[in-house]
Amino acid sequence: MIPVEEAVRIIQDAVRPTERTETVPLLESRGRVLAADAVSDVEIPPFRRVTMDGYAVIAADGAGAFEVVEDVPAGVFPRVRLTPGKVAKVMTGAPLPEGADAVVPVEDTGGYVRVGQKADIKKPVGTGKNFAAQGEDVKMGDTVLAAGTFIRPPEMALLASVGCDPVPVYRLPRVAMLATGDELVDPTQKPGLGQIRNTNTYAILGQLQALGIKPDLLGVGRDNDHSLTEKLAQGAAYDFLIVTGGVSEGDRDLVPAALEAQGYRLLVHKVRVKPGKPLVFGASDDGRFVFGLPGNPVSSMVAFELFAGPALRRYCRVPGRLVNMVDVVVGFDFSRKNAGRQEYLPVNVTTSNGEYLARGVGYHGSGHFAALTRANGLIMLPVDRKEVKSGTMTLARLFEW
Amino acid sequence: MIPVEEAVRIIQDAVRPTERTETVPLLESRGRVLAADAVSDVEIPPFRRVTMDGYAVIAADGAGAFEVVEDVPAGVFPRVRLTPGKVAKVMTGAPLPEGADAVVPVEDTGGYVRVGQKADIKKPVGTGKNFAAQGEDVKMGDTVLAAGTFIRPPEMALLASVGCDPVPVYRLPRVAMLATGDELVDPTQKPGLGQIRNTNTYAILGQLQALGIKPDLLGVGRDNDHSLTEKLAQGAAYDFLIVTGGVSEGDRDLVPAALEAQGYRLLVHKVRVKPGKPLVFGASDDGRFVFGLPGNPVSSMVAFELFAGPALRRYCRVPGRLVNMVDVVVGFDFSRKNAGRQEYLPVNVTTSNGEYLARGVGYHGSGHFAALTRANGLIMLPVDRKEVKSGTMTLARLFEW
Repeated sequence: MIPVEEAVRIIQDAVRPTERTETVPLLESRGRVLAADAVSDVEIPPFRRVTMDGYAVIAADGAGAFEVVEDVPAGVFPRVRLTPGKVAKVMTGAPLPEGADAVVPVEDTGGYVRVGQKADIKKPVGTGKNFAAQGEDVKMGDTVLAAGTFIRPPEMALLASVGCDPVPVYRLPRVAMLATGDELVDPTQKPGLGQIRNTNTYAILGQLQALGIKPDLLGVGRDNDHSLTEKLAQGAAYDFLIVTGGVSEGDRDLVPAALEAQGYRLLVHKVRVKPGKPLVFGASDDGRFVFGLPGNPVSSMVAFELFAGPALRRYCRVPGRLVNMVDVVVGFDFSRKNAGRQEYLPVNVTTSNGEYLARGVGYHGSGHFAALTRANGLIMLPVDRKEVKSGTMTLARLFEW
Repeated sequence: MIPVEEAVRIIQDAVRPTERTETVPLLESRGRVLAADAVSDVEIPPFRRVTMDGYAVIAADGAGAFEVVEDVPAGVFPRVRLTPGKVAKVMTGAPLPEGADAVVPVEDTGGYVRVGQKADIKKPVGTGKNFAAQGEDVKMGDTVLAAGTFIRPPEMALLASVGCDPVPVYRLPRVAMLATGDELVDPTQKPGLGQIRNTNTYAILGQLQALGIKPDLLGVGRDNDHSLTEKLAQGAAYDFLIVTGGVSEGDRDLVPAALEAQGYRLLVHKVRVKPGKPLVFGASDDGRFVFGLPGNPVSSMVAFELFAGPALRRYCRVPGRLVNMVDVVVGFDFSRKNAGRQEYLPVNVTTSNGEYLARGVGYHGSGHFAALTRANGLIMLPVDRKEVKSGTMTLARLFEW
């Protein structure tokens, strides 16, 4: 058994950010990571861009009644150069006519009139007001977003503005998910005597989906026939294979040996953590990885959060959330006799007046996944800590689902 | 102009949580909201379920060498009833044999031996240890998840366990997105004189995707031909229509009148907010909604965050994040002459030693969407507040992207 921190270090050392890239349509680029600098082929704004509906003016003209020489909607380039005493109707987004040096908002005028009529400019305006300078935000050739940038809605807008469609991004890993256990049946089946429905596949699927990853589901490997070996061989073709069950100490827990037979070196096997002790992590020489998660549903979900999720995030170069840990006041008592492992307890964190309270969720062990539906985070007891007292402060790790 | 809070109230009053439902495969249920109670057709565990690999024993037998009468892997139901002095090999997930009242972990024994041989039980174990009672977590007929529950990975596992596949969920709204503006060209086109690339469609698309919504994109409505009316008519068939541009005071800003022609009552038009003042919100008598967002890219993104996003969340019954506001120390000075509107400034929030710092992002106005790529939240200046001083505390609203 190795400490949690050492397991995390071994895993993060092995799993490096991917260098493989692909292109995706801009419409599908959200949540991906830019794989090349995005360089602008335009200036932004591409012209002196009007930012208020109104009249383009020469500011020095001040207030008064001035002839409207042109009507410049957005999308049309003005033809007339303004001279003193003349104005032009302009719309937000339109180019400012040459000669003009300000825009008077329509609210500060007598309203729009036709070309040839006189506009009533009621309030003077300062030079440079209500338009953006050409290239103010972006010059041609500027790198507007560097390789490695995580793509959110404003990045999508900026990529659109410089014509970056399709978008070069780092490839997501190909991930396979395999549950093991002779007792497992599909959710749509009614379990017979001694059987239970497969839940791990759905929990881990959800955790992978929350990272933007769509795994291939390999179904259920049975311990007592060829299916386990066959399915592990199938899964070993993926960048990441996630296996649940079959990694603890029973003599039918054939997974670790079968993984070695697939060319994985098992770098982690057993971690000083509860739940999740039997965790297996392996790496092949050709850059494939496997996580063997314990079969108990809470153990597999927690082990995924602590070990597999961060590794996949690192591979994908996806940043974590800004706020994933909060200081909480513990709202329950907990004690344990055996403090040999770092232990994670599911909690329900609520907030009131800026203070976070972590309530218990009636959790009574690693088979008790119904408790996780009431939880939104975990608190941690380090090795040798035997109790947590109600009213004390600790850090809670919030689920990023 | 109405205050932000009033606009939010009007919108939230109009947009009620949907009652329309559909079913989706369990595999696709993440992020959806359960539309009916999920009731269990099984007990969980369905039998006394072994939670450690080891030997099933009668605890009162204590330590010693005992005959192994059966080998019970997971997925197989035991046939033999244990009597004093006998044990059975059991695997995690297996049913505990009748007569047994505890499991001794294999680590506390001389290891596994075959049926008929004697197992060396080195440590005694307490009654009730290392197995879960039948129905301990869920009884048959129990409601395991109530209608209205947001579905995350543990909920997916629990739905799987009670056979709830496909899953009844509230329907997502059908959303159409329409950009307007004669000056707009697609990202793949090189803008001509007076033109710019369409960015709003991509930003708003990303914001909708972050809510789990896949809108239909209606392209660009032109102000100066029939396309605007046609496209608005097309969009008016959707549960929500999002239009960008065409809502400010220019005489070509035809959108509000065109929306009324489509049967929308405009309940909000102009909000005392910067950016985002020209916001339009309308509702039809048959439960359709429209948001007219300003055409400036920062304005449209901010108006979406403040008004459209929360309304869509409410319609979908999707909860917000636990931590979406944090107390920040402001890391820059800002002042304004005109404090007539509630103003939102994009900021970059970082954390160090549990304290959050909000830095400026060089933002200089609502056309400056490149600044938003450096921001992860907004700080707000209320009406009449003219400045924010570096070093003072305020609340930052974090983007949920």
